[in-house]
Amino acid sequence: MVTAGSWPDRTIRITDPADPRIAEFTAMRDRDLAGRGDRFIAEGRVVLQALTDVLDDAGSGRGEARFVIEKVLFLENRIEGLGDLIDRLDADCPVYVAGREVLDAAVGFAMHRGILALGRHLPPPSLGGFLEGLPDQALVVVACGIANHDNVGGIFRNAGVFGADAVVLDQSCCDPLYRKAIRVSVGAALRVPFCRGGSILALVGELVSHGFEVVGLSPRGAEELSRFQPGRRQVLLLGTEGEGLPEELLNALATLRIEQAPGLDSLNVATTSGIALWHIAKTMGRIGR
Amino acid sequence: MVTAGSWPDRTIRITDPADPRIAEFTAMRDRDLAGRGDRFIAEGRVVLQALTDVLDDAGSGRGEARFVIEKVLFLENRIEGLGDLIDRLDADCPVYVAGREVLDAAVGFAMHRGILALGRHLPPPSLGGFLEGLPDQALVVVACGIANHDNVGGIFRNAGVFGADAVVLDQSCCDPLYRKAIRVSVGAALRVPFCRGGSILALVGELVSHGFEVVGLSPRGAEELSRFQPGRRQVLLLGTEGEGLPEELLNALATLRIEQAPGLDSLNVATTSGIALWHIAKTMGRIGR
Repeated sequence: MVTAGSWPDRTIRITDPADPRIAEFTAMRDRDLAGRGDRFIAEGRVVLQALTDVLDDAGSGRGEARFVIEKVLFLENRIEGLGDLIDRLDADCPVYVAGREVLDAAVGFAMHRGILALGRHLPPPSLGGFLEGLPDQALVVVACGIANHDNVGGIFRNAGVFGADAVVLDQSCCDPLYRKAIRVSVGAALRVPFCRGGSILALVGELVSHGFEVVGLSPRGAEELSRFQPGRRQVLLLGTEGEGLPEELLNALATLRIEQAPGLDSLNVATTSGIALWHIAKTMGRIGR
Repeated sequence: MVTAGSWPDRTIRITDPADPRIAEFTAMRDRDLAGRGDRFIAEGRVVLQALTDVLDDAGSGRGEARFVIEKVLFLENRIEGLGDLIDRLDADCPVYVAGREVLDAAVGFAMHRGILALGRHLPPPSLGGFLEGLPDQALVVVACGIANHDNVGGIFRNAGVFGADAVVLDQSCCDPLYRKAIRVSVGAALRVPFCRGGSILALVGELVSHGFEVVGLSPRGAEELSRFQPGRRQVLLLGTEGEGLPEELLNALATLRIEQAPGLDSLNVATTSGIALWHIAKTMGRIGR
């Protein structure tokens, strides 16, 4: 129970699961907010922490403002431990609190961990501007046609762990701000700056014109990953599982293969990104001693 | 439709979803055959192919008999393309065929891909005997406390891709022959020999007594992965996500960490296995030129 005086006045108690002020959270039961423009649901302490870290960085001038938190909804018995996070929210961000019965009825039993935020992504105005904001030595992951939210989430998680500067997604990739993708990324979909849209050919052209060397990963790649020497601005290009990268693109680019045992077994694309990012970040001197 | 004469006489048509001859497949809707001893469901062409490959290898003396296929159930419009697989089944393995309505009613809509097999695992009698059967130069993955079927499936997939000789699972790991684990492993849970059971301390003791060098992976590991020189018989030890390996074990073993960017972000355990196996298999000269 939240007792009087023990919590700041800004919490607003919700007692009706159908209260319109929490309608966006209610809707996630059915639609996961897919296709709702740039709004997304962040859930759990780790993910909300990632989101407020990004906002703090923007507030202190260490990064672009990439997100807005529009409202939060907490289970009442979680709120005592969330004081530090609540203090970091904008003053005009409503903090809704509900008991377990109301929350379960509103968003579905066990579909939340008592910590929910409704965020809005502020996408970069253009890929060109986005790329100009990247450092002189840079590592960028480009994904083409990744349709699976686990895989997109896993690629972001690895981009975060190995310190990639950005992720660029072509128009056929799924949304990294879909709930499951954020969860699988352990918040990295919020931490790692990204840009979405455009055909893969257009994206590669723009990257090359910004001084990036582009290498594509493929089981039929020409060079072994362990022998690869990355450039100063390096793009790692990943294709969809199964099909892989389009043949015309592979023919036009430098390509790498991850060494493996003989046979037809293939790696998962998120695992592929982890192996390649580890090697490339290490060779670029970005990780390790 | 299967027309008379176009298919071998051994197919048996099922017209009642409640037919007791397919009861094991029906049960998977609710329980996924978890906890049913050594029986498991293999689904899809790739997985059934992996299973029959293993059986063929055993039949031709290139491996132990590790599995039996007890029965198969196919959607009628898939069967024309399965002749080669059916010819490789034991003569006493029933081949059941059903129409879509019967199959959907029996096993649940969209829970199958028209290709299902009921298998039985023949576990190795002892870990000692299992280890004695491994080659002189060997790479073994040992997993401790992996409770998530996606992660166990991913670890097997990577073990297969990088040619590990075996996987050993402690008693607290989940079942790699659970449907989802087999599916995520893309059949590698069937291809890569494995042994289950025992405490992690007992397993490590047994491995050491069989000449294996054991190295544990941990974010707090003493040595960087890229500097690691594996032994002739090498064990790669993986702990559960979150908790990681038990402290007492880490203190007693050589330990590795995967180099990463500063911060608290962590890798998924399946991805971890992929990165470490790639590096170790390469350093052992087992993959690449």
